Amino acid sequence: MRQVYIVGTGQTPVAEHWDRTAASLAAEALASTLGPLAPARVGALYVANALGGALGVQSQLGAAVATAAGWYGVDATTIEAAGASGGVALRQAYLAIASGACDLVAVVGVEKVTDVLDGRLEAGLALSGDADWEGIHGVTATAQWAMLMRRYMHQYGYEAADFAPFPVNAHANGATNASALYRFPISVDKVRAATMVADPLGVLDCSTVADGAAALLLASEGLARELSSVRIRIAGSAVATDTLALHSRPDPLRLDAAARSSSAALRQAGLLFSDIQVLELTDPHGISAVLALEACGFAERGAGVQCGREGAITPGGATPLATGGGCKARGDTVGANGIYQVVELARQLRGEAGKAQVSGAQVALAQCLGGIGVTAATHILLAE
Amino acid sequence: MRQVYIVGTGQTPVAEHWDRTAASLAAEALASTLGPLAPARVGALYVANALGGALGVQSQLGAAVATAAGWYGVDATTIEAAGASGGVALRQAYLAIASGACDLVAVVGVEKVTDVLDGRLEAGLALSGDADWEGIHGVTATAQWAMLMRRYMHQYGYEAADFAPFPVNAHANGATNASALYRFPISVDKVRAATMVADPLGVLDCSTVADGAAALLLASEGLARELSSVRIRIAGSAVATDTLALHSRPDPLRLDAAARSSSAALRQAGLLFSDIQVLELTDPHGISAVLALEACGFAERGAGVQCGREGAITPGGATPLATGGGCKARGDTVGANGIYQVVELARQLRGEAGKAQVSGAQVALAQCLGGIGVTAATHILLAE
Repeated sequence: MRQVYIVGTGQTPVAEHWDRTAASLAAEALASTLGPLAPARVGALYVANALGGALGVQSQLGAAVATAAGWYGVDATTIEAAGASGGVALRQAYLAIASGACDLVAVVGVEKVTDVLDGRLEAGLALSGDADWEGIHGVTATAQWAMLMRRYMHQYGYEAADFAPFPVNAHANGATNASALYRFPISVDKVRAATMVADPLGVLDCSTVADGAAALLLASEGLARELSSVRIRIAGSAVATDTLALHSRPDPLRLDAAARSSSAALRQAGLLFSDIQVLELTDPHGISAVLALEACGFAERGAGVQCGREGAITPGGATPLATGGGCKARGDTVGANGIYQVVELARQLRGEAGKAQVSGAQVALAQCLGGIGVTAATHILLAE
Repeated sequence: MRQVYIVGTGQTPVAEHWDRTAASLAAEALASTLGPLAPARVGALYVANALGGALGVQSQLGAAVATAAGWYGVDATTIEAAGASGGVALRQAYLAIASGACDLVAVVGVEKVTDVLDGRLEAGLALSGDADWEGIHGVTATAQWAMLMRRYMHQYGYEAADFAPFPVNAHANGATNASALYRFPISVDKVRAATMVADPLGVLDCSTVADGAAALLLASEGLARELSSVRIRIAGSAVATDTLALHSRPDPLRLDAAARSSSAALRQAGLLFSDIQVLELTDPHGISAVLALEACGFAERGAGVQCGREGAITPGGATPLATGGGCKARGDTVGANGIYQVVELARQLRGEAGKAQVSGAQVALAQCLGGIGVTAATHILLAE
């Protein structure tokens, strides 16, 4: 397989973009990836989107985005894997270059959710679980994460307050990110005093679903040498799945797809989890980040929550997380999250992350999950 | 890039499968592709589906199908491109092997549409056009094809009856296919006497949307040699897009994405359209097949409809089409069509097509369209 490099990034602010279509948001994010390159040089376009069909926004988004971007005729593919859509689409874009089929490929994640009013958003989000055995009973992903958090607290002896450092860190970092939905800090006390959503998850333990688009331009090694002074190599790429229904898992606190996709991606890169200097995880709730940290090997089972308590997840810590605000403060763009993650990590690897910069970051891991870890996509990024 | 071979096929009957989930249909089609191989040998699974999100059936279908099939943990990706979903997914599966990332990859197209009662099916199908400028006004794909047929008749001087040989051929062939939705012949007179749907398209000029799943197993050259006595090579693979809205096209009777994806796929295979011995096109209406025949070079502009009149599209003709019944008689499984097409062509290339067999067929072309030719995916298949 050929080597694959990230040579351009772009993003819109995460916000309520009531006056925009999904395709126009995606086109905006794509435009800034190209720089002086002509669109006709792009061999393929991958569009990650979770909810366009479920919300009746638009299907065939690949072609819709190509039209909106003015990339007439381009080979365009739409990928859906709920919250893992971005990472799964990145893997396909990676394979298109690794195969030799293309030298330049764009991938954009886009979500447009805020002008849907009649309960379709909740119904659409619930489709990412087992629609026949979970969704039909009204179980949402938030309710399932709340049950996992309750189980974790019971099994390992923690309080809900032990999870609060995760949203606090996300907001502290989001405050420094001009593209974030929430650009203000919050405190542990505020998190614990917030209105309850799904006990023990309060409103400040929960991400907010919002609109946005983020894009990457990938190139083969030869083209990357021409185009870019700072090159970022995708050194590992893997997707794995778990059972669709949470109730089918023998150990619900183990995110098996997350574990297997991260170990496969690290193996491909020839690295260990301890080599990772900065990471992005699917962190709509503290419990989500905690279970993913454990699945990837950054913490022992039952000890992930301590990464929050001990400051390890802050930009100065051992496992800096959500440096752009994460799902909680950057905003939860569902199918676009996986691309926003990599745009943020590229900013870190280029040393452009300002107050949230992880000093000397050269090796990064991005992992996004669809549903309760049903699909997991992991990528390892190296500054070269 | 490595060579890619088709080493297994499977399909469910096209029907109203009221008692089945999408994932169980897909699992059934996949099961018969594997033969004695263990599921753990499959490196990646691609699921093509157009309407799972829009109909509220299930999202993350990749993982849902993996769960239903018992392929625990497999790298699974869902692809959506309306009626082109199957072909676009096949291209991703092709790239996964061509890249060297996998040696064995499965792709399944599945659609589950018949138990949706409240108008969501029509709304979901309309999303494949421009939702903001076409769908919102109630324009359906059928209405757009009817307008193109009217324009074609006006521009080139034909009658509606000139298009009737296309459904007549489809039904004659479908009558020999045990998996087809409609297994009875119809006559030109019946087609013209049928109830009008969207003038000049009568009900027998229109495909019926139905449930079904079709699957392919792809392998690298080395593995294909081990597994299969008759090997079918994917010699060309290409996807292209056109403008999302029909009204944006300077020449609406030219399916530009179809033209460009077929010429790219033929170029990759080192073949000319005249080398193709049997083909599958997106043919929900005669006009769709006519415009695709012209776009691919099988007929001059304005002359495609004559392929019907002169018997060229029958199994004994020069451009045998819809030998398994096509969209009209096999049934229109939307996102699964592109895989049903290739399952049928594999049957032809293996000489197993019975009464619809094209004598000595060694070279085949499959092309599927999303919406009114918005996305087009073309594959060239060679018996080796």
